[in-house]
Amino acid sequence: MRDAPRPGRPEGYALLRLIVGGICNTDLELQRGYYGFIGTPGHEFVAEVVEADNRRLIGRRTCGEINIACEQCDWCARRMDRHCPNRTVLGIVRHPGAFEEFFTLPERNLYLLHDDVPTERAVFLEPLAAANQILDQVRMPPRTRIAVLGDGKLGLLISMLFHARDYEVHHFGRHPEKLAIAQRAGVDTRIVDGDLPRAEYQFVVDATGSAEGLRDAVAMTRPRGFICLKSTVHGSVPIDTAPIIVNELTLIGSRCGRFESVYSWLSDPAIRLEEMVTDRFPLAEAPRAFARAAAPGVLKVLIQG
Amino acid sequence: MRDAPRPGRPEGYALLRLIVGGICNTDLELQRGYYGFIGTPGHEFVAEVVEADNRRLIGRRTCGEINIACEQCDWCARRMDRHCPNRTVLGIVRHPGAFEEFFTLPERNLYLLHDDVPTERAVFLEPLAAANQILDQVRMPPRTRIAVLGDGKLGLLISMLFHARDYEVHHFGRHPEKLAIAQRAGVDTRIVDGDLPRAEYQFVVDATGSAEGLRDAVAMTRPRGFICLKSTVHGSVPIDTAPIIVNELTLIGSRCGRFESVYSWLSDPAIRLEEMVTDRFPLAEAPRAFARAAAPGVLKVLIQG
Repeated sequence: MRDAPRPGRPEGYALLRLIVGGICNTDLELQRGYYGFIGTPGHEFVAEVVEADNRRLIGRRTCGEINIACEQCDWCARRMDRHCPNRTVLGIVRHPGAFEEFFTLPERNLYLLHDDVPTERAVFLEPLAAANQILDQVRMPPRTRIAVLGDGKLGLLISMLFHARDYEVHHFGRHPEKLAIAQRAGVDTRIVDGDLPRAEYQFVVDATGSAEGLRDAVAMTRPRGFICLKSTVHGSVPIDTAPIIVNELTLIGSRCGRFESVYSWLSDPAIRLEEMVTDRFPLAEAPRAFARAAAPGVLKVLIQG
Repeated sequence: MRDAPRPGRPEGYALLRLIVGGICNTDLELQRGYYGFIGTPGHEFVAEVVEADNRRLIGRRTCGEINIACEQCDWCARRMDRHCPNRTVLGIVRHPGAFEEFFTLPERNLYLLHDDVPTERAVFLEPLAAANQILDQVRMPPRTRIAVLGDGKLGLLISMLFHARDYEVHHFGRHPEKLAIAQRAGVDTRIVDGDLPRAEYQFVVDATGSAEGLRDAVAMTRPRGFICLKSTVHGSVPIDTAPIIVNELTLIGSRCGRFESVYSWLSDPAIRLEEMVTDRFPLAEAPRAFARAAAPGVLKVLIQG
């Protein structure tokens, strides 16, 4: 443990020491100017509680809800704290992120881990909750057929989680080695090397992070069907609204999810999280970790505190 | 009555003679290449039945459902005939439109008018049904506050219909003389001459037909709110998906509606349809009518058969 500077700990906040962080595509987009965030990134983490008002927390291993809500407004009073207009967001909006030796988060945001959850699985809790969020927004009966587009990190989490939750997932991607992970998890995977099915799915999840992906999703969705937008892209994407209107499609933006909805799935070996870890770097080599995370073919890059 | 050529009448079809047609923005977009349609446009109409298998129809004044479904497929079997993949559409997809002295439509598509409904109100039945369609797609409790963007023909129909249906409509537009019609109908109208409210509405209807309108709609919608896409624009529009995802907005494309859901509102004088008629042209001057309909400040242009 180095003698790093410790940030001030406001009342109600815990001081955390990074154990492992995960680099997310949003972190890469932030580096490209998305959201105008300047500062330490990092919002996927497992940390140890170093200081806290609540002494019971000290020494515990924890994840954390990344949205820091004001707890004063109407949104917070309706449990919509993740949409609190006054919120800061760990490593994204006006709150320094987890890719430092020490960082802070309100104690109420902590999510303590059981001892039997491996750290390198627990670091996926935040993105797995984001994957699960779709199910909090759209009513999809069990065994519904769902197309997932994109075989990046979030696409894989969505397809494996939804498969584990008893949906009939068809996972479309362009990278055989990435899709293979979902395939080993039992997902029906399809390499895209030409035309995609047209107007065939009632539910399509776009996790491609590309304008083409959204266009493909629109074309694959049946009239009156649903498209879940699950990627962060920086800047404008050109969209032909005509098929959305003519086919009366519903597009739903989807962001963070609740940890409690998905925590039990962290222990399901059918969600092959370990296989998604491409690389590990010590915190001192964070810039190298980011370069690696942006390279083609790379899935999750972890930063070790 | 001129001696115009009469199109062939397939079995089950009625031969119709145009009484009055209305020019819709979709007609103008079709002229610009939208949907690649070549042929006679026209899908808003009141006509007289000239020939039909069912003799009772002959001589009656009628409107008509514009989607001509196959009645064979699963979509049709689920009353989703307006989304039948084999459909043609009057004046839009592979079926000659209403802006001719004679045209055809399946008898089952006809919607007979009562004698006390004036023709120049009845010609608004199709677009009024399109305005009403939103309510078939999104559950909006009575007295819900709704922002309507755009003071063109469809925007005015939406704001006046929703006001008549007991919603609290805030109608935003840039044309005082157009908004004045909605204002006389009792709608709360607001001239846009600067910043729009931000993140304030749970329900926003974009009837601007412009990329800027959609961007404004996204900015005006509260987290977890709904945006109804009600305009036909030809070509791609640039959309920043980030606020849609971050605020978890739902975008819903919306097209044609059912006549029966809105027919009774045709007789409500609070929906000031007459004031929306800018001009009338005889059928022989249809090209002039189209030029007029495309001019700034013009609302509904009628074509008289």
